[in-house]
Amino acid sequence: MDILIRDLDYAVDINLNVYKNIDILIRRDEDSKKISIDRGRNLLEKSNLDKKDLKIIDGDKKCALPGLSNNHTHIPMTLLRGIADDMILQEWLREKIWPNEGRLTGEDVYYGALLGCLEMLRFGITSFNDMYFFPEEIVRATKEVGIKGTVGFPIIDFGTPQCKDLDKLLNNCEKFIKEYIAEEKINPVVAPHAPYTCSKDTYVQCREISQEYNVLLHTHLSETRYEVVEMENKIGMRPVEYLESIGILGDNLITAHCVWITKEEVKILAKHRVKVVHCPGSNMKLASGGVMPLVEMLREGVSLSLGTDGPASNNNLDILEEMKIAALLHKAHRWDPTVGDVDTVLRMAFNSESIGFENRDIVLLDLNSPHLRPVHNIKSNIVYSANGNDVDTVIVEGEVLLENKKFSKIDDKYLRNIYHKVNSIIKKFN
Amino acid sequence: MDILIRDLDYAVDINLNVYKNIDILIRRDEDSKKISIDRGRNLLEKSNLDKKDLKIIDGDKKCALPGLSNNHTHIPMTLLRGIADDMILQEWLREKIWPNEGRLTGEDVYYGALLGCLEMLRFGITSFNDMYFFPEEIVRATKEVGIKGTVGFPIIDFGTPQCKDLDKLLNNCEKFIKEYIAEEKINPVVAPHAPYTCSKDTYVQCREISQEYNVLLHTHLSETRYEVVEMENKIGMRPVEYLESIGILGDNLITAHCVWITKEEVKILAKHRVKVVHCPGSNMKLASGGVMPLVEMLREGVSLSLGTDGPASNNNLDILEEMKIAALLHKAHRWDPTVGDVDTVLRMAFNSESIGFENRDIVLLDLNSPHLRPVHNIKSNIVYSANGNDVDTVIVEGEVLLENKKFSKIDDKYLRNIYHKVNSIIKKFN
Repeated sequence: MDILIRDLDYAVDINLNVYKNIDILIRRDEDSKKISIDRGRNLLEKSNLDKKDLKIIDGDKKCALPGLSNNHTHIPMTLLRGIADDMILQEWLREKIWPNEGRLTGEDVYYGALLGCLEMLRFGITSFNDMYFFPEEIVRATKEVGIKGTVGFPIIDFGTPQCKDLDKLLNNCEKFIKEYIAEEKINPVVAPHAPYTCSKDTYVQCREISQEYNVLLHTHLSETRYEVVEMENKIGMRPVEYLESIGILGDNLITAHCVWITKEEVKILAKHRVKVVHCPGSNMKLASGGVMPLVEMLREGVSLSLGTDGPASNNNLDILEEMKIAALLHKAHRWDPTVGDVDTVLRMAFNSESIGFENRDIVLLDLNSPHLRPVHNIKSNIVYSANGNDVDTVIVEGEVLLENKKFSKIDDKYLRNIYHKVNSIIKKFN
Repeated sequence: MDILIRDLDYAVDINLNVYKNIDILIRRDEDSKKISIDRGRNLLEKSNLDKKDLKIIDGDKKCALPGLSNNHTHIPMTLLRGIADDMILQEWLREKIWPNEGRLTGEDVYYGALLGCLEMLRFGITSFNDMYFFPEEIVRATKEVGIKGTVGFPIIDFGTPQCKDLDKLLNNCEKFIKEYIAEEKINPVVAPHAPYTCSKDTYVQCREISQEYNVLLHTHLSETRYEVVEMENKIGMRPVEYLESIGILGDNLITAHCVWITKEEVKILAKHRVKVVHCPGSNMKLASGGVMPLVEMLREGVSLSLGTDGPASNNNLDILEEMKIAALLHKAHRWDPTVGDVDTVLRMAFNSESIGFENRDIVLLDLNSPHLRPVHNIKSNIVYSANGNDVDTVIVEGEVLLENKKFSKIDDKYLRNIYHKVNSIIKKFN
């Protein structure tokens, strides 16, 4: 059914145009799956539409924006949210994260992903880019919740908790891609973990799979100073130079973090049209030290977006919050308040294109709260004043999935069951 | 009426003890105004209380914490929220903030303060420390909303938009203190603006007033590199040394920011038991550059708390968000994830003592949200996962002011009227 949102106080579109007192009409052609979004005044009166054929949403005291996109995360780590914080990275991984991840079954990952997808939907995130083992369970949870997932099949030389054999992993990765490549709201992806956990051969094989099926590649890149220095010492190249030398860089590559990179490396990324996902909250929480070179990236025209990273190093999946953290971090880092401006971070937050989804989703923010008043500049209020809980309505591919802050397809009983399952799963953690 | 909160999932007290499956009983002696808070299991059954004499609140899927305290802010700047962002500090002040502040009447300030007090109440802030002109209007708004306010009467050598004459200002400040000193939930305070806007004589007179009436002093200190360098060049002293030299430092002094200070200055602040309010969000947004030396402050035992600063440089009044920003900033700044740990920032957020209020308030967080599940460590979920909108119930001095996320004493019509008034006020802004 087509959706008409009437009398919105504000709307911001994907090009950051701002509209006041406007209607939005969302129509979906069921044959072509094409979504059209029209904005204008009195759309009902002007069109030949019949009220009976429409789902009508009251836009009073609301602001419409495009769907938010969480472009680097590990969703099932919801299960590990808050299990350990304020620790040195290596201790945190070795003592708390890896041992407990080793205990997870596919079913556990499914429930963790379900919880995370619901959190994202609640917070207006309509598409994400994930990397975690048991990716087929993440697909299952994503389809159940109804948002759009770019789901990476993770490849690590020494295996994942799901499968310890590299050849088998690569084989399973291909099967995974074949199984889900036709899905409308799922993009299966090859996800070699990082240059310090995947050999040259592994990266090359991943690239070959991605080329064969025309899917994206997703990898971690230059997140910590240690991995960069180690590589420089071993082979005399920095990670970006290395990935270029083995032919991995290209416009189908999504790289997360890129906090320890030089201006030269930024130019290399730009030359190959690599997509970079900025995860400021996680980088700060893990004290990575480096800061993604925002100004240099923008100058060179690198495609940028935002990611929360996993909820164990954030500890939530809130892109509205991440926008503010990004804006603040870059101002503080450069002693320059003009950096990380409102338009820049909004563009990053709306960028689902770089993970393979056209952004034709609509999120409504509830402006009926003291902290979102007055409105001098609605874009400022979105970036600096709002948080995920201000999301009121979420429409994904022409379907209402959240309305009045309630899940449309999921009732309280079902939600309680998920919480209950999650509580059972974490009993086995140390 | 006494209040019983039954079957809370979690409670965190002022000393950061964590309780599970507990009741909280809040009793208020109307004669002595003393509040008692008892925690335990099955309190109704164990006590001689009659259900009829109690307000009973269901604690299921909730976590109780002490009231949050916003220890440095300029509340009526809600009116300027989002009017300008991403600008160089001096341009921002000269072109956007000061000219528009000059247009504000007492009535305007009242409505701005009303909006800000409601925002704080909604976000679980039960006490604040403010500095803004027309402070009597801020008192009026605070009393109407019912939270507790330490309200500074601002002193600037060249006057405020309310009064341009310094002698008159100091006179009015005394009158202000006399008028409100007996109020239970208001602490009137002398607020010399900053060492670069107040002369030595002014500071000395402010100190004398504060001593005569035994009230607190509230000032900005070492917020920007410029003011510190300027003073060093002029008089060969840094701001903390200067305030010590003129006898202003003491345990009744609350200083905001302190981002450009040396280890020696930290020791001086500690020696005089000066209270420091950390405003990480505002410092980052304005690109102040300096970072409050958290580790050194803690080492020297300085009393620390958190402030949002004004909503024009934040742009909200959310101490739950500010906790996370504080934790992230210090980790990133020192490349050390153990800094700005959960306990440290919680202690700062609960510290209403340093602005003169015993913390005997209770805030309930709603844990019935995907982003607050599971709970490995409730304190971590509060700091890293929650935001102001997760606050469900607020009890100030034994009185329920927010329940089920709705204001108890303020209805929708009244709220709409405030929004309407605020919209009218900002029409005169440039």
